[in-house]
Amino acid sequence: MNIPIPALTQEGNFSRLSLLYQKIRSRSLDLTKPLEIEDFNLQAMPDVSPPKWHLAHTTWFFETLILNTLPQYQVFDPDFHYLFNSYYKGLGLYHPRTQRGLLSKPSLKKVQDYRQTVDQKILNALEKERFNTEALQLLELGLHHEEQHQELLLTDIQYNFFTNPLGPVYREDLRKPHNSQVTPLKKLNYTEGLYQIGHPDKGFSFDNEKPRHQIFLKGFSLANRLITNSEYLEFIQDKAYQQPKLWLAQAWDWIEKEKIEHPLYWQKRDGYFWQFTLEGWQALHLNTPVAFINFFEADAFARWAGSRLPTEAEWEVAASQEEINGNFLEKDYLIPLAPETNQGLSQIFGDTWEWTTSAYGPYPGFKTFAGAPQEYNGKFMINQMVLRGGSCFS
Amino acid sequence: MNIPIPALTQEGNFSRLSLLYQKIRSRSLDLTKPLEIEDFNLQAMPDVSPPKWHLAHTTWFFETLILNTLPQYQVFDPDFHYLFNSYYKGLGLYHPRTQRGLLSKPSLKKVQDYRQTVDQKILNALEKERFNTEALQLLELGLHHEEQHQELLLTDIQYNFFTNPLGPVYREDLRKPHNSQVTPLKKLNYTEGLYQIGHPDKGFSFDNEKPRHQIFLKGFSLANRLITNSEYLEFIQDKAYQQPKLWLAQAWDWIEKEKIEHPLYWQKRDGYFWQFTLEGWQALHLNTPVAFINFFEADAFARWAGSRLPTEAEWEVAASQEEINGNFLEKDYLIPLAPETNQGLSQIFGDTWEWTTSAYGPYPGFKTFAGAPQEYNGKFMINQMVLRGGSCFS
Amino acid sequence: MNIPIPALTQEGNFSRLSLLYQKIRSRSLDLTKPLEIEDFNLQAMPDVSPPKWHLAHTTWFFETLILNTLPQYQVFDPDFHYLFNSYYKGLGLYHPRTQRGLLSKPSLKKVQDYRQTVDQKILNALEKERFNTEALQLLELGLHHEEQHQELLLTDIQYNFFTNPLGPVYREDLRKPHNSQVTPLKKLNYTEGLYQIGHPDKGFSFDNEKPRHQIFLKGFSLANRLITNSEYLEFIQDKAYQQPKLWLAQAWDWIEKEKIEHPLYWQKRDGYFWQFTLEGWQALHLNTPVAFINFFEADAFARWAGSRLPTEAEWEVAASQEEINGNFLEKDYLIPLAPETNQGLSQIFGDTWEWTTSAYGPYPGFKTFAGAPQEYNGKFMINQMVLRGGSCFS
Amino acid sequence: MNIPIPALTQEGNFSRLSLLYQKIRSRSLDLTKPLEIEDFNLQAMPDVSPPKWHLAHTTWFFETLILNTLPQYQVFDPDFHYLFNSYYKGLGLYHPRTQRGLLSKPSLKKVQDYRQTVDQKILNALEKERFNTEALQLLELGLHHEEQHQELLLTDIQYNFFTNPLGPVYREDLRKPHNSQVTPLKKLNYTEGLYQIGHPDKGFSFDNEKPRHQIFLKGFSLANRLITNSEYLEFIQDKAYQQPKLWLAQAWDWIEKEKIEHPLYWQKRDGYFWQFTLEGWQALHLNTPVAFINFFEADAFARWAGSRLPTEAEWEVAASQEEINGNFLEKDYLIPLAPETNQGLSQIFGDTWEWTTSAYGPYPGFKTFAGAPQEYNGKFMINQMVLRGGSCFS
Repeated sequence: MNIPIPALTQEGNFSRLSLLYQKIRSRSLDLTKPLEIEDFNLQAMPDVSPPKWHLAHTTWFFETLILNTLPQYQVFDPDFHYLFNSYYKGLGLYHPRTQRGLLSKPSLKKVQDYRQTVDQKILNALEKERFNTEALQLLELGLHHEEQHQELLLTDIQYNFFTNPLGPVYREDLRKPHNSQVTPLKKLNYTEGLYQIGHPDKGFSFDNEKPRHQIFLKGFSLANRLITNSEYLEFIQDKAYQQPKLWLAQAWDWIEKEKIEHPLYWQKRDGYFWQFTLEGWQALHLNTPVAFINFFEADAFARWAGSRLPTEAEWEVAASQEEINGNFLEKDYLIPLAPETNQGLSQIFGDTWEWTTSAYGPYPGFKTFAGAPQEYNGKFMINQMVLRGGSCFS
Repeated sequence: MNIPIPALTQEGNFSRLSLLYQKIRSRSLDLTKPLEIEDFNLQAMPDVSPPKWHLAHTTWFFETLILNTLPQYQVFDPDFHYLFNSYYKGLGLYHPRTQRGLLSKPSLKKVQDYRQTVDQKILNALEKERFNTEALQLLELGLHHEEQHQELLLTDIQYNFFTNPLGPVYREDLRKPHNSQVTPLKKLNYTEGLYQIGHPDKGFSFDNEKPRHQIFLKGFSLANRLITNSEYLEFIQDKAYQQPKLWLAQAWDWIEKEKIEHPLYWQKRDGYFWQFTLEGWQALHLNTPVAFINFFEADAFARWAGSRLPTEAEWEVAASQEEINGNFLEKDYLIPLAPETNQGLSQIFGDTWEWTTSAYGPYPGFKTFAGAPQEYNGKFMINQMVLRGGSCFS
Repeated sequence: MNIPIPALTQEGNFSRLSLLYQKIRSRSLDLTKPLEIEDFNLQAMPDVSPPKWHLAHTTWFFETLILNTLPQYQVFDPDFHYLFNSYYKGLGLYHPRTQRGLLSKPSLKKVQDYRQTVDQKILNALEKERFNTEALQLLELGLHHEEQHQELLLTDIQYNFFTNPLGPVYREDLRKPHNSQVTPLKKLNYTEGLYQIGHPDKGFSFDNEKPRHQIFLKGFSLANRLITNSEYLEFIQDKAYQQPKLWLAQAWDWIEKEKIEHPLYWQKRDGYFWQFTLEGWQALHLNTPVAFINFFEADAFARWAGSRLPTEAEWEVAASQEEINGNFLEKDYLIPLAPETNQGLSQIFGDTWEWTTSAYGPYPGFKTFAGAPQEYNGKFMINQMVLRGGSCFS
Repeated sequence: MNIPIPALTQEGNFSRLSLLYQKIRSRSLDLTKPLEIEDFNLQAMPDVSPPKWHLAHTTWFFETLILNTLPQYQVFDPDFHYLFNSYYKGLGLYHPRTQRGLLSKPSLKKVQDYRQTVDQKILNALEKERFNTEALQLLELGLHHEEQHQELLLTDIQYNFFTNPLGPVYREDLRKPHNSQVTPLKKLNYTEGLYQIGHPDKGFSFDNEKPRHQIFLKGFSLANRLITNSEYLEFIQDKAYQQPKLWLAQAWDWIEKEKIEHPLYWQKRDGYFWQFTLEGWQALHLNTPVAFINFFEADAFARWAGSRLPTEAEWEVAASQEEINGNFLEKDYLIPLAPETNQGLSQIFGDTWEWTTSAYGPYPGFKTFAGAPQEYNGKFMINQMVLRGGSCFS
């Protein structure tokens, strides 16, 4: 589910870790720079967290799991443990998720001080080599955790702004995609056999990526690129949202109850579709990948197209043969792009997360992280389908 | 339901109206001065409106009903008509009430500009005597409307802050009550007879205060002052919240479903009650009136005390014999106080609104306001009980 | 709210009381004769009670309030106290209202035995003059209570059958109305003055009908008959259900949320309306009174017609000048009829209950019944509008 | 998910098919014999269907999918297509599932006639060899479908009776288990390797059992028998329902919201647990398998026991090595029993369905049934965990 990045703690390279810490932590602040102070408490639905909360919670993670293990550490503010714990029941009571948007206090200013204070203490302790191995591992986890929240932060900002009838723009200065042709869609074939999947356990990985294990796969094929908005539009124009036979039963109930006729961020105006992006409302980009569709929609599209979604194992086998490279956050597009090449498999990393037909569950032999982060992933392994590959927000 | 204040438009006294306009409009801004910018979008429940929204909506009222009638008036921002209309269906679509707290845009700054721009145009037009009688009447209504929203603003701030686990303080510099004895509770008697109630129609009145009309009342008695927190505490200690026989059926369903054991703003800590105020959490004030109880609680208390709530007519007959004077907003206590005297009837105005046992409905011969404000009151005359007298927020 | 019927207990006329008891009790059974056994447990919405439950509950009322006061009385089945108590919290726990339709046990047979056993014991005790005055008063209340449930029984059967797509017929042998012309609608005027309303306290009355008291009324007028389906159809055809200005705010929310376009029991087929009756689906009767509309609809119709609903006091003053006579249950039409005469005021009793613009509340000096029936009416005096006059089911 | 039974249609053995048809169809009626007529419409929650509906729907299946393909077939009642279609959107509109319990009409008598009529026509057509191969395959599917509904029928009766405070008994004459010792719990080991799972495609199978395919499994172990009520009681007594760390996040939300403290059919009285069965309330059977626990409870128990649930593939590999034999419906216990032997693997078939840790999804290469039954299984493959093995109701 996650992109492996080089492990640091095993190398004991503290100065490199220190630089990485500063880089990742400051990126969170950078991502909030386009916001006005009033945008920091927005929580437009229960599953969204306000930007200020993201900034505070990621800091709380470092303070609670790492600084608190140092002798004589004084917490920044004792109330923050209740306010900014997300869901770690083992660590005590926490503020209800649905009410994060009501926390006008503590102020953004105080949360920014919190970040700065915690960062100084972390960096200071790093320099003085006061962390033991376990703390260093948690520090590395904290950085990956921060990166996950950076993605959530952008996702949540997009949703928050989407609900505002003024259609606010997050940034106007995003890097602009060079206009590109869409590669013809074709099938790439993979042969039957025994494969290894799961993280090879060199460097950092989340607990849910392990252990590496053997699986048997029949031969399968995978499309050479993502589905475009234009292709998805055909699906809509073929009245897919009016045909129950294309949908899972729960999906159809959702369509009927919510009167769904197109993806979340689409809107029809005078017969043409528009899409909401971090640059505001734009005429639908025809050649770029369809994004922000849910599992029901991806599954129905695949059925309509006479195909199916890949299993997680198939995805992982295909992905393991490619370079980890793609349209991620750092590229600063913040929108999926048309593929850069018509050779081989494109876009398996970046652009947009890819739905698999596998339910989220433990790999054989799965063990949760030890200690406090044992609640990190395992307890959510139910009634969710697996997304892989990362996105332009990751 | 409202305190008559001197009518201005009938006198054509424009400079006095201009001064009053400035005074009332600037009070709204004064009331938001203790807020930080992040407090301006809070909407802690659907019935609450964010402070920024109050500031904008009251301005929209003047712009839409009055400035718009001037030739060649250019609206400040065409989106505001949708965003800041509260519930006037006759004026077009409006933003859903439950989502007012999600409007991080337009910014507070822009809303403040909106106020300033509208105020200048109103004052300018007043000075140039460009308003006709109808516009002047709407202006007067707009000022009363603004005062109603000032009360809502304080009420909503109190609720918003109450939901924050940090228990924020709105103001620490409120005027402090002189500690006072509580007058003994006694009954004042009123004789049977024909009475006139309703607004006498000299000066301004809301449509729901009219017409003045005759009623017949049996003799009745009224308590000489409000019930104190201490008296309400006895009711709680007598296990009133555990005895269905004291409550209306709907009230008991509410108590059971929500597990209610005390008034909204009370909290029990280590066996003692605290109350939430605009100065934050305080130990329960024993000698001051119980406030922020709902109709169910007032009705049950009266039953427990072997009494009943007055009807609206009884209240109005009693009140009409008193000076309109009391602990209102201007006194700057922002909390109900013990009565100042033990003579006659105290506290019928100010301190806290008083529940009557009358359902909200039209007076015989009721007519809504003409024009756009016809939706002001009439359409809400159902399934509400009448409160009278005003409060320390009014 | 209720039709006074001659009081019996005060006369000590036991044999007449015995006959009346038998007559009223057997009518309940008669009303269920057209049902098949499978119809006896239907509860098509929470507010409906199944026929079997009505039969058992009315019997429980006699057993619990009256037989239980006799020395050495053995209850029929100890479980029935929990199962068939409706809402008397003072008498102990009871089965949740919403689950009455799930009681396939006890069987109908057992409930019929229950009725028979209780009836025999009541009649036996009556004959032997074993009841004291209080018991006799409760017996009389029990008979009125049974009559109220007979009306509910028919109302609930109609709703239950309405939800069945087969549109079942309750009875095909109802008395058929002679086809009649509709009297032209005109206003009858009533003069201003002091009136007495409330039950005069000779004979039986419900607690909520008392005490008799004086009121002052301005002059008012009342239509000489009920509104017909044809007149209501005009209201619909004038797009009333699409115009918010005709409706109370809560009413409009209901119309929008539930997509209401006509009264509950109406259905549009190929452009024409049909209505559901105890004889099944029928083409809309144009000349008979519109029935089964809620307060919102009555209120909006009155507003549309440039009129208003009467207050309860106005209704009672007008009704007190008429004979209590009308199309009630005994007439065996079980559907409202066109008025029989074009003289004076028609249809104030019977045909269909009439909405007033008064909220349900206590008359001045109201006291609940003493003892167990104190929960009979008083605790429901909130958030309901008053209906008067009785119906063809009463 | 289903127990393969010998395929008949491929043999063309019509008389054997005819006998099987009669046997299976009459068993449905036999299962309803202990019911009183009032029990036939019970639907104590939306997921339950009333017994009458089960009888009608299974008949509708034969009529719609098979008889309707015969030339000149006249449907029994045209309304039944709407009333008794369960969820086949491809076949048209159907009555809302949640309202099945309100269908007092058609009567049980009419539904029984429906069964008889359809059965005669099916048997007649069988005898005359009027069915083509496809119809015969659908007939076989219809019989398996009927058996699935027999299991649902018993499950639903148990739930319906459970909600009745009288705790009704379905049958008192069930076969009584010989009292037996519980085999000690031990692990059976299975070796790593490539296995074949899925239905071997000889004889009947449901679409979701196919195709047979190869998988790779690491070595695993499985308990030699089911967990007993006594062992589950230890879990409860160890305060498992109070410890969030044992539960999935969704499970804990459920426990907190619904205040769950024990399995559905358990009840604590004076410190001891009772369980509800088809013979009514009984003191908890300590040595028999815990049943009617949901996935959350099975998963938490396994975690508490330091173990985990098997995957579906592991279950299938283990089961494929055993005889298909167990405490099924035919044994007429209708309650899970202690294992009969302490040798090898017990109870993998019958007694109670067994939770796996696999989400319900398609086997690789899955195809839905052709024609109308294409909606039979595939559209439900989302957000459900797989149960295997069958139960004493199967």
